[in-house]
Amino acid sequence: MSTATTKPLSLLVTGTIGIDTVETPTARAERVLGGSAAYFAAAASRLAPVRLVGVVGDDLPAHHRTILEGLKGVDLGGLETRNGGKTFAWGGKYLLNLNERETLFTELGVVADAPPQVPASFADSELVFLGNTHPAVQAGLLEQVSGRKLVVADTMDLWINIAHDDLVHLLSKVDGIVLNDSEAAQLTGVRNAITAGRRILGYGPQFAVVKKGEHGAVLVHRDGVAVVPAFPAEEDMVVDPTGAGDTFAGGFMAHLARTGRTDFETLQTALSWGTVMASFTIGAFSLDGVARASADQLAERYSRFARHARV
Amino acid sequence: MSTATTKPLSLLVTGTIGIDTVETPTARAERVLGGSAAYFAAAASRLAPVRLVGVVGDDLPAHHRTILEGLKGVDLGGLETRNGGKTFAWGGKYLLNLNERETLFTELGVVADAPPQVPASFADSELVFLGNTHPAVQAGLLEQVSGRKLVVADTMDLWINIAHDDLVHLLSKVDGIVLNDSEAAQLTGVRNAITAGRRILGYGPQFAVVKKGEHGAVLVHRDGVAVVPAFPAEEDMVVDPTGAGDTFAGGFMAHLARTGRTDFETLQTALSWGTVMASFTIGAFSLDGVARASADQLAERYSRFARHARV
Repeated sequence: MSTATTKPLSLLVTGTIGIDTVETPTARAERVLGGSAAYFAAAASRLAPVRLVGVVGDDLPAHHRTILEGLKGVDLGGLETRNGGKTFAWGGKYLLNLNERETLFTELGVVADAPPQVPASFADSELVFLGNTHPAVQAGLLEQVSGRKLVVADTMDLWINIAHDDLVHLLSKVDGIVLNDSEAAQLTGVRNAITAGRRILGYGPQFAVVKKGEHGAVLVHRDGVAVVPAFPAEEDMVVDPTGAGDTFAGGFMAHLARTGRTDFETLQTALSWGTVMASFTIGAFSLDGVARASADQLAERYSRFARHARV
Repeated sequence: MSTATTKPLSLLVTGTIGIDTVETPTARAERVLGGSAAYFAAAASRLAPVRLVGVVGDDLPAHHRTILEGLKGVDLGGLETRNGGKTFAWGGKYLLNLNERETLFTELGVVADAPPQVPASFADSELVFLGNTHPAVQAGLLEQVSGRKLVVADTMDLWINIAHDDLVHLLSKVDGIVLNDSEAAQLTGVRNAITAGRRILGYGPQFAVVKKGEHGAVLVHRDGVAVVPAFPAEEDMVVDPTGAGDTFAGGFMAHLARTGRTDFETLQTALSWGTVMASFTIGAFSLDGVARASADQLAERYSRFARHARV
């Protein structure tokens, strides 16, 4: 459901709030704040207000909650704390070139139980981003947002493998999908990112954003195809790639929210905002990179990158 | 030696003129016209006059010579035909995804003998593109162009391996270098394309163009860094990738020639012209794709791609 108003649109994100332990070849971060919804909200809130829906256990460290509460523009009205529950935790290790990683552990905790509920006060949200989880859960969350005008879902290889039919059903109900090039190939059997994207549109969405990591992203839309290169980050600029994809999505969706537009041209511009948010994220552990960049730094990098493709 | 006039600059290319036999998963082209200088000239001549320097044997089929002679704007005054010599021939086979290829045979023929000579009438050429060959030969050719204002060299992994010192010497004498990301990594020991490019500037050039194939290219320049995505070609658009790199270089250099400018901003725009030329090249066997595109098609694709990053 594409709209073309110029009134800002309200934005809601569902996803994980987690505790990450990350090792890189040169550094380590122990039990820092992470999770798809946390990263998304930290980035999105730099451009537009965002409503967060997710669950944590009552073990969430107080300083992590303080960080979330300190994110200006993030409405935590949908953050549920489950007594006796354990917060989602993830541990990962990046290999030498920082483009490959291995997962050391995943403790689902409360995420394995009932999904979060969208509070009634959030049901009028116009833009919805469904962070990566089981597609049947995503479909259930979507139904709770009666005011939705445009819904975009993230997914991953696991669901393509074990919940293919649920994913195809979800695709018939969303307006956009965000996935990696390898996932697009897996879903369609087509390696070419654009051709794969077009096949995905056959399942129902208006557009697919196919992410190519350090090689940028492609927007395959019913109205056209657009490409964006990755931000050309030098080696010493990359501290921790965790959250790059989630903050890319956050910047992308928030640009739609603040402009109140969801047409092809706006989506294309939104790709660059996503890229800029991701470029700050990878410069520090946890949410620090994107949360601490000044407004001037964001605007300056956007201008150099999106308008001139320069750094 | 950067200049900033607005008078067009003369352009010279040295490289191979060859006979290619190409197999793709779905088609085959037998003994068609190819070679780095032929591809370069076919692309460059779409934007600016170009002088070609190279050698062939007297076995070059008459219809190949007719094709070369038919390229409007290509001055063949530096095309030497050696009696009794054999024209360079190459055979290659592309694997299923068209991004990998294997060389089936390489018959150097006259290319293994003495290098071509730059005719006296070409010695005043201002822009020089040294197609890929032994760096000592490239250095010798460069010296023959006394009027040179900006020299760009192509190279390949073979010379990094077996002629490293000659290549480093060449780098101290050129203004720009064009190479693949894997070659940049091999030369510098650094995988990151931008960091590798900066290291290469340490050898002397003002700029390095690091090509990433289907992922675009990066321009690392003393005055800044610029990125260009690849043209987002769908599967059915790619017939034969042969010559994509050479026509990229041809479009790139010809844009400098016709604008008479070699500053960073112009080089950045030139990247997009290179990308557009390569996108036509891969759509057909031999020079056909880039030679047969209409002027309107070139302009239209440039506008969509470079101005809007759309297809």
